[in-house]
Amino acid sequence: MAVNLPLPVPANLKPVAGIELGYAEAGVRKTNRKDLLVIRLAPTATVAGVFTKNRFCAAPVQVCKTHLDKLATSSAPIRALVINTGNANAGTGESGLANANTTCAALAELLGCDASQILPFSTGVILEPLPVDRIKAGLPQAIANLKADNWYNAAESIMTTDTQPKAASRTVTISGKSVTLTGISKGAGMIKPNMATMLGYLAMDAKVPQPLLERMVRDAADKSFNCITIDGDTSTNDSFMLIATGAGQLEVSDAQSPDYAELSAAVTSISQELAQMIVRDGEGATKFMTITVEEGGSVEECRQIAYSIGHSPLVKTAFYASDPNLGRILAAIGYAGIGDLDVSKINLYLDDVWVAKDGGRNPDYKEEDGQRVMKQSEITIRVRLARGSAAATIWTCDLSHDYVSINADYRS
Amino acid sequence: MAVNLPLPVPANLKPVAGIELGYAEAGVRKTNRKDLLVIRLAPTATVAGVFTKNRFCAAPVQVCKTHLDKLATSSAPIRALVINTGNANAGTGESGLANANTTCAALAELLGCDASQILPFSTGVILEPLPVDRIKAGLPQAIANLKADNWYNAAESIMTTDTQPKAASRTVTISGKSVTLTGISKGAGMIKPNMATMLGYLAMDAKVPQPLLERMVRDAADKSFNCITIDGDTSTNDSFMLIATGAGQLEVSDAQSPDYAELSAAVTSISQELAQMIVRDGEGATKFMTITVEEGGSVEECRQIAYSIGHSPLVKTAFYASDPNLGRILAAIGYAGIGDLDVSKINLYLDDVWVAKDGGRNPDYKEEDGQRVMKQSEITIRVRLARGSAAATIWTCDLSHDYVSINADYRS
Repeated sequence: MAVNLPLPVPANLKPVAGIELGYAEAGVRKTNRKDLLVIRLAPTATVAGVFTKNRFCAAPVQVCKTHLDKLATSSAPIRALVINTGNANAGTGESGLANANTTCAALAELLGCDASQILPFSTGVILEPLPVDRIKAGLPQAIANLKADNWYNAAESIMTTDTQPKAASRTVTISGKSVTLTGISKGAGMIKPNMATMLGYLAMDAKVPQPLLERMVRDAADKSFNCITIDGDTSTNDSFMLIATGAGQLEVSDAQSPDYAELSAAVTSISQELAQMIVRDGEGATKFMTITVEEGGSVEECRQIAYSIGHSPLVKTAFYASDPNLGRILAAIGYAGIGDLDVSKINLYLDDVWVAKDGGRNPDYKEEDGQRVMKQSEITIRVRLARGSAAATIWTCDLSHDYVSINADYRS
Repeated sequence: MAVNLPLPVPANLKPVAGIELGYAEAGVRKTNRKDLLVIRLAPTATVAGVFTKNRFCAAPVQVCKTHLDKLATSSAPIRALVINTGNANAGTGESGLANANTTCAALAELLGCDASQILPFSTGVILEPLPVDRIKAGLPQAIANLKADNWYNAAESIMTTDTQPKAASRTVTISGKSVTLTGISKGAGMIKPNMATMLGYLAMDAKVPQPLLERMVRDAADKSFNCITIDGDTSTNDSFMLIATGAGQLEVSDAQSPDYAELSAAVTSISQELAQMIVRDGEGATKFMTITVEEGGSVEECRQIAYSIGHSPLVKTAFYASDPNLGRILAAIGYAGIGDLDVSKINLYLDDVWVAKDGGRNPDYKEEDGQRVMKQSEITIRVRLARGSAAATIWTCDLSHDYVSINADYRS
């Protein structure tokens, strides 16, 4: 079950000029499901992305990086992205790389471009050979139904254990010019992104040169996909891609301009929405938790404590049970690895309830107040460290029986 | 359910000369259960321990450290340990310290010694005031039934979510002299000790001076309680205590002597047994896993990778399901934080089955071989890094529906 995650309405997902999307049922792992997506870009588009820092990064991630690196010395732009589910093509060695390149070459031939102008992505089971022939066979079907108005189908095509498609769309006006942004994402396990999440794609019709786009996607990822965790497992395939088609009215060329700041803020905001959707649909999730750590000596130590709380199976099961067993949060703060932490100065709040004061139980804290907040489906945990002025926020979910069921049965 | 954990037989738990144990039903949290234990020591005994590194260390841990530190300048030995379950007396601030000291003073008065000669321990719920009056009221009952052959009752008295008592006992002969060692431990959640586990007590009748005993307990903990994890949560109350009563035949006074080495090996061995019992009875555990990482550049990086595997919820649920979804192990190796790890050199084995070869799937690996091993209740995961000659081993268990149930219901 997803936590307060409204099903996207196809009519609300605005087409982005310069983008067409086409899907196929390629039978990568299972039949009768959309499992292959092609995103075709206008030749004016720029593309930038961030990828997993897992050392076992998947073959398609390696190929993506190679093709993006070529942009620095080539005038041939990226023309398409191709994404399959059902198989991660990770832990597959040299043959995995060959299969990712074969996929690119096959799509390039159909679209009339070079293989290096294609970016490949995979998600699914690790350590199994990619069924590249099925993917090649599915490409013509995907190309045949390419259209601008296919975002909902695209969101469905990249789902794995997600219970519903994730998409967001909006139009903003910057300096009197309209910009349309539409994006999709998917989770729902192995989520503790380190540079990006499992898969996220965000397109807009503004014109943004490559170096500025790279900066914008890093900023957005740091404030969105890099602030979520479901189970602390960083995937081998994390990728978040930002596309600027250049087919709309706005052109941004100066990172110091107000237009850049406004566009970057819009990109970050919709990225946060897409990232939070992944948490809301986290495997087995029944609660959506915002963890904010304030008054830290550095952002890094605030993040460290926030993740220590967000990864604790004991904290997560207590939230699942709506049990205000809040000492578990103090324990997680205590083992976060901050050697000189003075716990006698720590204050802990659950929404508006002041639970721990100066390192101990707040004398005014009442169990029924904690209970009231714990029963909610959305809860904010706030920690004040009294060490400085830095702060960090992450988003996470609880740990339920269904998380175990889903992951025990994942391949069946 | 516990994994291959034989119920200790009371008659097999040998008394240790110089030690008496007495329990009470003090009603700390629930009625009609043993929840208070007093361990009385002969005046010749030495005691050393290791404690949690959690910054939110519990009040009794702080008092223990203070009383042990006093030994350096005092001739008054530790005379008793007092342990309660049902309440951790952690996250309780100044009043928690006062309550721990009150417990010591009450027991000291009954035993006719100074409060600083008592070591207090608590385990249970964090962030709740210790019901110190109930503990004081229970002390006379515990003292009334002090006796030498009470180890089984003692093991029962320190249980929380443990499904069965944990104890081990043996007699070794060193230089023709007999030494009896008997110990007890308890888990079963919030287990990722950092210096010691939740609670472990090991006594022997050898005579060992304080500085040597301190060295011996650190060595033993590093090779036993510091090598286990259930859920990655380091408790606020971890304590492992080693007692040498001096009432037996052997006296060890030189850390370079063969006798010291033999005694230290016996202490380490029985500590490993007690530590592994905690994993075998880990909350919801159905599988016992040994994770060995070899050919590392340092012991630290081997431990880092072993814990990354051992903490991964996705690895743990796959083992629960007996599903050889072994790419999850590669992913956990990849995000362990070893920046220069060359994944193309990594080999992975499941017992005798060679799963991944040089970073990819071993061409000779067959799913049915992985399946065969995964169905066992005890499994060894072996990783070869091809970076050096260091190695490390940890022990852990799987993640089941019951783990979630137990921790969702813990306080009810």
